[in-house]
Formats: sequence, C-alpha cells, structure tokens
Amino acid sequence: MYNQKMYELGDKPSIIRELFEYGKAKKALIGEDSVFDFSIGNPSNPSPKVVNDTLINLLNSVDSVKLHGYTSAVGDYDVRWEIARYLNKTYGCKVSGDLIYLTVGAAAAITICLHALLNEGDEVIILAPFFPEYKVFVENALGVVRIVNCRCDNFEIDFDALTKAINAKTKAIIIDSPNNPTGVVYSKECISKLGMVLKDKEKVFNHPIYLLSDEPYRELIYDDMMYPFVTNYYDDSIVCYSFSKSLSLAGERIGYIVVGSNAFCHQNLYKAICGAGRALGYVCAPSLFQYMIPSCLGTFASIDVYKANRDLLYQGLQAIGYEIIYPKGAFYMFVKALEKDAIAFSNKAKQYELLLVPSDSFGYQGYVRISYCVSKDMIIRSMDAFKKLYDEYRGSNNE
Amino acid sequence: MYNQKMYELGDKPSIIRELFEYGKAKKALIGEDSVFDFSIGNPSNPSPKVVNDTLINLLNSVDSVKLHGYTSAVGDYDVRWEIARYLNKTYGCKVSGDLIYLTVGAAAAITICLHALLNEGDEVIILAPFFPEYKVFVENALGVVRIVNCRCDNFEIDFDALTKAINAKTKAIIIDSPNNPTGVVYSKECISKLGMVLKDKEKVFNHPIYLLSDEPYRELIYDDMMYPFVTNYYDDSIVCYSFSKSLSLAGERIGYIVVGSNAFCHQNLYKAICGAGRALGYVCAPSLFQYMIPSCLGTFASIDVYKANRDLLYQGLQAIGYEIIYPKGAFYMFVKALEKDAIAFSNKAKQYELLLVPSDSFGYQGYVRISYCVSKDMIIRSMDAFKKLYDEYRGSNNE
Repeated sequence: MYNQKMYELGDKPSIIRELFEYGKAKKALIGEDSVFDFSIGNPSNPSPKVVNDTLINLLNSVDSVKLHGYTSAVGDYDVRWEIARYLNKTYGCKVSGDLIYLTVGAAAAITICLHALLNEGDEVIILAPFFPEYKVFVENALGVVRIVNCRCDNFEIDFDALTKAINAKTKAIIIDSPNNPTGVVYSKECISKLGMVLKDKEKVFNHPIYLLSDEPYRELIYDDMMYPFVTNYYDDSIVCYSFSKSLSLAGERIGYIVVGSNAFCHQNLYKAICGAGRALGYVCAPSLFQYMIPSCLGTFASIDVYKANRDLLYQGLQAIGYEIIYPKGAFYMFVKALEKDAIAFSNKAKQYELLLVPSDSFGYQGYVRISYCVSKDMIIRSMDAFKKLYDEYRGSNNE
Repeated sequence: MYNQKMYELGDKPSIIRELFEYGKAKKALIGEDSVFDFSIGNPSNPSPKVVNDTLINLLNSVDSVKLHGYTSAVGDYDVRWEIARYLNKTYGCKVSGDLIYLTVGAAAAITICLHALLNEGDEVIILAPFFPEYKVFVENALGVVRIVNCRCDNFEIDFDALTKAINAKTKAIIIDSPNNPTGVVYSKECISKLGMVLKDKEKVFNHPIYLLSDEPYRELIYDDMMYPFVTNYYDDSIVCYSFSKSLSLAGERIGYIVVGSNAFCHQNLYKAICGAGRALGYVCAPSLFQYMIPSCLGTFASIDVYKANRDLLYQGLQAIGYEIIYPKGAFYMFVKALEKDAIAFSNKAKQYELLLVPSDSFGYQGYVRISYCVSKDMIIRSMDAFKKLYDEYRGSNNE
C-alpha cells in the first residue's frame, strides 16, 4: 500500500519531538511556567534587525517577477559569489562561487550530498553521540552507517577507533562542530589531525573519502577560538551550512553546500550534487531568502544570551553536583545521567517537569542533552527541580 | 567517487534549461529584443499585491522567533486548516487539515508522495507528453515508469491504452491538468471516467492505485469551466499543489499535499508522507511563506495577460497555417512541428531566433511546446519569424 520504511519514520517521530509535544500538552495542563522544557533546539533569539530590514527592502524595491521567480537551480550567481568572498575573507580559504550550491537548509544540504556521493552499500562514518537524522539520511541514500564512538572522557574524536573503522567501503564521514548534542568544538589541531588520518586512508584504499562538515552552529562559539574551516585542512571536504541558527531562521530553510576547490573531481562532484538536488525535488532555495544573504553575511543573532544561559546553567548544575561536558559552542549541554539508563533518568526528570533528552536518541548511553536556547528566567526557575532530582538519586541507591 | 546516475542528471540539464541558457547567451550577443524565447515556464506576471503586503505585514508584526522558527514538520496547524476550509468551500470537497502536508513546492510534493508510496519495482503510469521531471522523480524513488500516450488527435486521456497499461504492479498514476506541455484541461467527465477506470482496476488487482494529481496550473484556466477536484471523483486521490504559478511565486517554493479523506489507509499514508519528507531532508516548508498563505487563498496573479497572450498567439499562428492543440489552461501551447523530427524543427526555428522546446523532451514526438508566459510585445514581434519559418517549410519539400 505504501512504503513501510517511510511509514515507520513518519509514525515514530524522534524522542526529541515526542518530549517537545509532551511538554506542550503538559504546559496546557499545569501552566507554561511550571514545565522546564529543555528538549528542542529552536533558536530563542530574534533574528538580527538586518534580516527583516533586508527582506522588507527587497519586497519594496525588487521587481516581483525577478524576486519571486525561479533562480538557477544551484542558486543565484551573485549570491553564490558573495558567499564565496565572505568565506575566503573570514576563514582564509579559497572556495569558489561556482562550487557553491544554495539549499533549503542544512538537512537538505546533507541529504543532497549523500545522494550525490553514495552508491548502494557505501559506508558513512558518523561519530556518536550524533544528530539522529544523520542515520535516516544515510540509509535513505542507500548507504550504510558505521558508528564510531567519541572519547568517553571529553567527547573529542577517538582517532584510534576512527582509524580502525575506515575501510575500503568508506565513502564519507560526517562531523558537526560545534556539536549537537555535546557542545564540543573541534580545535584546529583536531581538524588537522582528522585531515591527515583521512588522507592516509585515501592512499591505503586508493579512493577519495569525503569529509562532510555539517556547520549550522559554526558561529555559535562562546569562548575565544578560531574556527578551523575544513577545506583549509583537507582537500576532499564538503561544507553543509545553514542560516537556521546563526540568523535564527530555522523555519525558513536557507543554507548552502560548498565543495572544496581541491576536492577530487570537484567539478563532477558538483554536477552530481546538482543531479541529486534535481532528483530529490529541490528546484531551488527560496528566492527571497537567497537575495537576503549578501546583506546579512557576517551578521549574527546575538549569542550573548546563549552564552549567559550556558554559564548560568553550567555553574548551577555543577554546584548541585552534576557531571557535565563543558560546552564551548552550539546551545546544547551534555550531562551525565544519575543512573545508567538515561531513558529512565529522563523519565524520572519528567516527574520534576524537567524535559531532558536521553542520549540514547543520539546513539549513546548514560547522558541527557539539555537545550539551553530557552529563557534565562526558565533556567533560574528550573534549578530547584534539578536540585530535587539530584537529591532523589543521592538519597537513594539507584546509581 | 560519486553516484553516476546523479552525475548524469546534473551533467545533462533538461533541453528546456539548455534552450533557456542558449537564449540568454544569444540575447547578450544580438540584443534582448532579437531573441524570441518561448522556452521556459517562469511566470511573467507579478504576484498580486496582497502577497508582498502580507509578507511585509508579517515581518513587521509577528515575533521574529515565532515567524522564522521551525513549524511543525507537516506545516503550521492553522495554515493547514485554512487551506482545507478554502478547498472545501471552493470545490465542494471534504478534505481535512490533518491530511494536508505543506511542502517546498510541487516538485517536493510529488517526490515526497512517490517515496511514501513506492516500493522498489512498483510501476507509476505517466501520460505522454509529460513534464520530464516525473520520470526523474519516479526512478529516484526506485519506481518504474510506464508511459501511456494521450490520444493523438486532442491529447486527452486515451482510456483504452490506459486500461491496458494498468497491471498488478501499478501503484499510482500521475496526471497534471491543466497540462504541461499541451495546455489541455481535463473535464469533469474525464476525471469521473478516470476514477471509474481506476476503481475497477483496484478491484481487479485488489490493492489501491493512487491518483497523484499535480496541480500547479489549477487556477490558470481561460475559458469558462468548473475544475473537477479529484478527491470528489476518486477516493484514492492525492493532490500536489504549488503557489508557484497561481501567485507567481515559483522561486519561493511553497505548496502542499492533500491526502483524500477517503483514501485507503489515509492516516498511515499520511504518516508515510511525513516519513518520506523527513528522510528526504525536508524539515518544514519556509515558515514566512506558510504564514502568508491564509491571506492569499482565493487571490491569484492576473491571468488576463496569459489569456490575451494565448489568444494572440493562437490566432496568429493559426492564420499562418500552424496546427495547434487549442490550449484551455496553463501557459503552454502544443504546436505540430513542420517536419517529423521535432528536434530538427526546433533547431531550424533557432535560425529565426525562435526558441521552441521539441516535444521529445516530454516523451512525445513531432511537436514543439511554446511557453507564452512572455511579454505581449515579444509575441507580436515574433510573428514575422514564425511566418518565415513556416514559409521555409512550405517552400521546400521537407515535410
């Protein structure tokens, strides 16, 4: 009657969505302020003023047929080159507007890249804990997921495990830094080492291994550090970017793919990306939002609020006694569950109206993810609940 | 290195795109006014005023986090129900907002439906001449295309041929009325008969055969007729709609899927659609354009201009001697080529700077498609070229 796999994907929304819906219902029942919903990563900051100003200006000044009409499937030429110039100036890279492909957000970007790259049975490495949709996207492109756990002490890349996992079937590896769900940001040294490992393995297996870097949180870094742009460290890199978080435009679905200028067969690879976009029904990225991009490059929704939230929550939870991976970026915090079973812990937390996503959703055990793109007020009010939750475990022998 | 099929799709853009690009280059060479580009279906009418007014109003009045944030994956609840109410009022149907799924345009809608419906090897019937991307979409969803030619006299559905083509593997049939490329609009009687044929075959083969109705041109009908909404005539119907043409928003990518309320297993089918949208990386339809919809339902970009173009072109070409299928809707005209080989005819037309798409692109031979979503002025200026082209054939014995 219909495709069973698709039905299952539609029937079982992610645990994140489930918690979020549970929270909505609970709020309606006991009041908005009584539920501490840390489940979802919906930006809580408004877009910077330049976004709406630019959109209104475009609507008032550009000819309707041009503004709302089809762009080239790869995206408007000028917009692509503006992005290239911005990236080259900001990160000292050498990307080309002719290898940029505008997309309907980062999820579309990754899906398109995977369909462009994979033949049935090709392996894609993802690092656990991971954004759960990666698995869905890889499998839908007929690829096989190979999971490599991160180091359990700091959630950095475990290079020994990674080196062992790469084999003749490995076509790509997906990374996201700043990371969802851990908040870890890979350093220049880390990306550089990753590049060397992949390069060595390319020689061993005599075919390219593409590094897909998913970068929706690229600008959400709270401490002083330089973001290592992957094309500077590894030739066979493809960047998938979205303005969802940096401009608080998650619903508008606008982002891009950059194929590294030195990637093996970069021109053919770019054509395969064009073909995949076509086959998947992506005609072009929303035109109004394409034309908005040049005026907004280099401007970001304020991250001060997220940073203040991080500091407040991190200090508060540490003071209570929670064990936390120090989050340098994104708006997620990875906190050790107070019992082995993170799902049970998440359920227990619900009794205190705390909605925390169990790490099982991210292919990892024993932690919960806290999304702190929420109001500061809610964080303050939640502390008492976190304390009670902690005391329940400390008072008992559950651990 | 990459997926060869995707590479080929990206490497060989459609002949339509090729002609369009050729036209752009030629215009740069010999002047904008000297090339008569009838190749592409980009709306040439501005959006109605209410579109930009609504967008600006939303930008000025709605909280940024709400306006630009994620909506539910299926689309905003209120928007879906507004669409349902509008459809029910307009077409006397009984669709439910809970079975509407907002999409990034009609191409996304069809792709998502096909992935939701098909298992590897399932057959999908498409009626030639057809929109070329249907084939791409079906094959990408691992389906098999079965082509059924329309009646060669009037390009209506050939029910004998259709009846013979349906078999145990038939999962769906795609129709688009008003039709691209012929401009034919199916009558109430036609849709009613189609429904009966499909219902009979469902009984024979004991499984549902879904009618996928692709309706981007639904409101572009020039003569007085009632549009037969498919769910009124056949239970197992799915409507794929886009605001691309009706509101001249082709670049913005906003549309929807309606699963018929009486479709077999409609709720599970809807879930499969949700799953397919998820697997294909469609997170949600652009939120700003979702919220625009309620204010714009029932308003359309003026079709007077297209109607005037149709009449002008139809009468002009007929007077010269061309044989044309009378186009009742969309903004395409299907004209018999003056030699058997439509590609050769299209190439000959190029010598007169006339860009006409050979029907081979649409899986049919011996015709060209003329897109008349162009300026009236260009149509008037092109008449001389059409006359010369005709005279060249009449003067010679090519036919």
